[in-house]
Amino acid sequence: MTTRPTPLKTTAAGQVHTDVDRFLKTFFAQKIKQSRAIDDNYTVLWQALRDVTLAGGKRFRPYLLLLFYEGYGGQDYESVLPVAAAQELLHTSLLIHDDIIDKDYVRHGEPNVAGIFKDYYQQFPLSGDTAHYANSAALLGGNLLLASAYDLTTAANLNATTKLSVLQELSRSIFTVYGGEMLDMESVMQPFEAVDSLRIAELKTAYYSCIAPALTGAALAGAGKSEHAQLKAFGTALGIAYQLVDDLLGVFGDEAVTGKSSLSDIREGKRTFLMAQALALAGRPEQKILAASLGKTTLTAAEADQVRTIVTNSGARQATITQITAYAAQARASLEKLPITGDAKQALEQLIQQALVRVT
Amino acid sequence: MTTRPTPLKTTAAGQVHTDVDRFLKTFFAQKIKQSRAIDDNYTVLWQALRDVTLAGGKRFRPYLLLLFYEGYGGQDYESVLPVAAAQELLHTSLLIHDDIIDKDYVRHGEPNVAGIFKDYYQQFPLSGDTAHYANSAALLGGNLLLASAYDLTTAANLNATTKLSVLQELSRSIFTVYGGEMLDMESVMQPFEAVDSLRIAELKTAYYSCIAPALTGAALAGAGKSEHAQLKAFGTALGIAYQLVDDLLGVFGDEAVTGKSSLSDIREGKRTFLMAQALALAGRPEQKILAASLGKTTLTAAEADQVRTIVTNSGARQATITQITAYAAQARASLEKLPITGDAKQALEQLIQQALVRVT
Repeated sequence: MTTRPTPLKTTAAGQVHTDVDRFLKTFFAQKIKQSRAIDDNYTVLWQALRDVTLAGGKRFRPYLLLLFYEGYGGQDYESVLPVAAAQELLHTSLLIHDDIIDKDYVRHGEPNVAGIFKDYYQQFPLSGDTAHYANSAALLGGNLLLASAYDLTTAANLNATTKLSVLQELSRSIFTVYGGEMLDMESVMQPFEAVDSLRIAELKTAYYSCIAPALTGAALAGAGKSEHAQLKAFGTALGIAYQLVDDLLGVFGDEAVTGKSSLSDIREGKRTFLMAQALALAGRPEQKILAASLGKTTLTAAEADQVRTIVTNSGARQATITQITAYAAQARASLEKLPITGDAKQALEQLIQQALVRVT
Repeated sequence: MTTRPTPLKTTAAGQVHTDVDRFLKTFFAQKIKQSRAIDDNYTVLWQALRDVTLAGGKRFRPYLLLLFYEGYGGQDYESVLPVAAAQELLHTSLLIHDDIIDKDYVRHGEPNVAGIFKDYYQQFPLSGDTAHYANSAALLGGNLLLASAYDLTTAANLNATTKLSVLQELSRSIFTVYGGEMLDMESVMQPFEAVDSLRIAELKTAYYSCIAPALTGAALAGAGKSEHAQLKAFGTALGIAYQLVDDLLGVFGDEAVTGKSSLSDIREGKRTFLMAQALALAGRPEQKILAASLGKTTLTAAEADQVRTIVTNSGARQATITQITAYAAQARASLEKLPITGDAKQALEQLIQQALVRVT
């Protein structure tokens, strides 16, 4: 009699999203209860953290972690779920703090933490500079989710040595992503040609979004260090491809789908590969228009359209798509070499495909 | 032949400060090296974090942790040192983020992280809103030290189960302190009489500064949970006493000693026990002057002197000293009941005494 292999929970569509959200709902319910013992005003913060965490997103990082876990033969899906959910909390923490840096009050079309508190603080007797206090609440909230990523991992039902090694990978991930955040934040103080946007994408996006989930999932399933180089190559390529796709969508995307203004990247003068290419490839008159438009906070919709036309006609849009395709091919090649199950491989192949589908 | 007991390293004056700084210097040297592999601009952040961490302060929290560790019979001082140092990193992280919330650029009479970057960013080609970028750098830097508190604990040379329980206490400490930070930040939007400043002191100061180091030190030495209530009572009383002393020094302290302006607490309208007492005890005309002065950002030195006179004459200063003395007595009473060594008890008694000496 042969044992039937446990079917992968991860390949059932939407299963991970549902499971992670179920787990996070329980987590937040517990924190909300604990916060009440401190003060009702602290509870307001935890409710906001719950709402923004569960509001949008695809649970991409937990999904990736669990795919690698099962792909390497891991079978204790429930025990690993808290570690997967921790990746999501780190992600939300980064988004909350990113929005402070970018002075944004909306995310996924809804008020973010600062946005929630900007409204909420209006009712305080001496509200004063509510925007600053709202950003302060978001700062503290982001910290709480950062700490919670450690907390969830520490409390997981896994053996102590495993947890400590997962915690170390979490710290490595955090060390890398803040390096990327720092360079990204500073990049707007640099001219386009001085910014290595692909390197920033690797540090800011690929490591914590792809490499760390892949390494952690594999390690939890008992994979050895010999897999590290290949997993990193896969995660780097996938992560950069995703960032380049995001940059394209930031300019050409449908606001109804992306949930963010297609003006903001241009208004911020975000140093993307796409725009660096446009500046390099466009003719002199178009370069001047770009230089005047990128970072112009009062940019109109018509001016943004002009920027889009220049980006497309210069060949920068196509050059970015070509680059994305090349990174996707790299990710695919690394994936092929990994000794993971066919099911996991197929699901990961789909992830790569989905990235491309959004822009090609 | 009797074994001579290991002399307490903690009771040798300044020993802990020296040892913690030695350890932290090695820690930062390693991070600075790792940051260089990412980017020289990331190294600038880590150098700033090192400088502000080592610039001032008394290493009070590591000292407390080590005193309790040795007081409960712990003998592996070197192995516990990273956990003690982690308390200092959490503390510095909180100060860095506090300064963002308070819009301060100076700490211990030196530029803080935001202050360092406000200067540094001037040299960037397109510096723009350097104050905002400097605060963004401080935000990221504070996060790195928060994560580093976990990282140091995870990497300590202690057994896995012990480390996980220390990590859980760290998370509890963080959960509590951000609750206090939240209430403290929001308190300036509330009238004085609506703010429970002693409760905020307990949450914001006592837990992470006294209770957590005491519980962690005791646990590392193998003390059982039966000690928890007494350790908490001690830490709560000592922590609140310290906060009340700080509040007094914030108004009456010598700037040369405290390293901070004796105007800023009044200008910020900080909701302290001292000021709440003054508002409650002063006569009607003096209350009006206080109401007009507290939170007045353009307050002159002469106006501040007037506030000080009212605070003293109303009896609020004495009432605060009486409160401090009462908390110190509570701390002493709890200390007496703890089954720790005489040396540790004596050193802790001195800590209580030192708090009082600063204001009485």
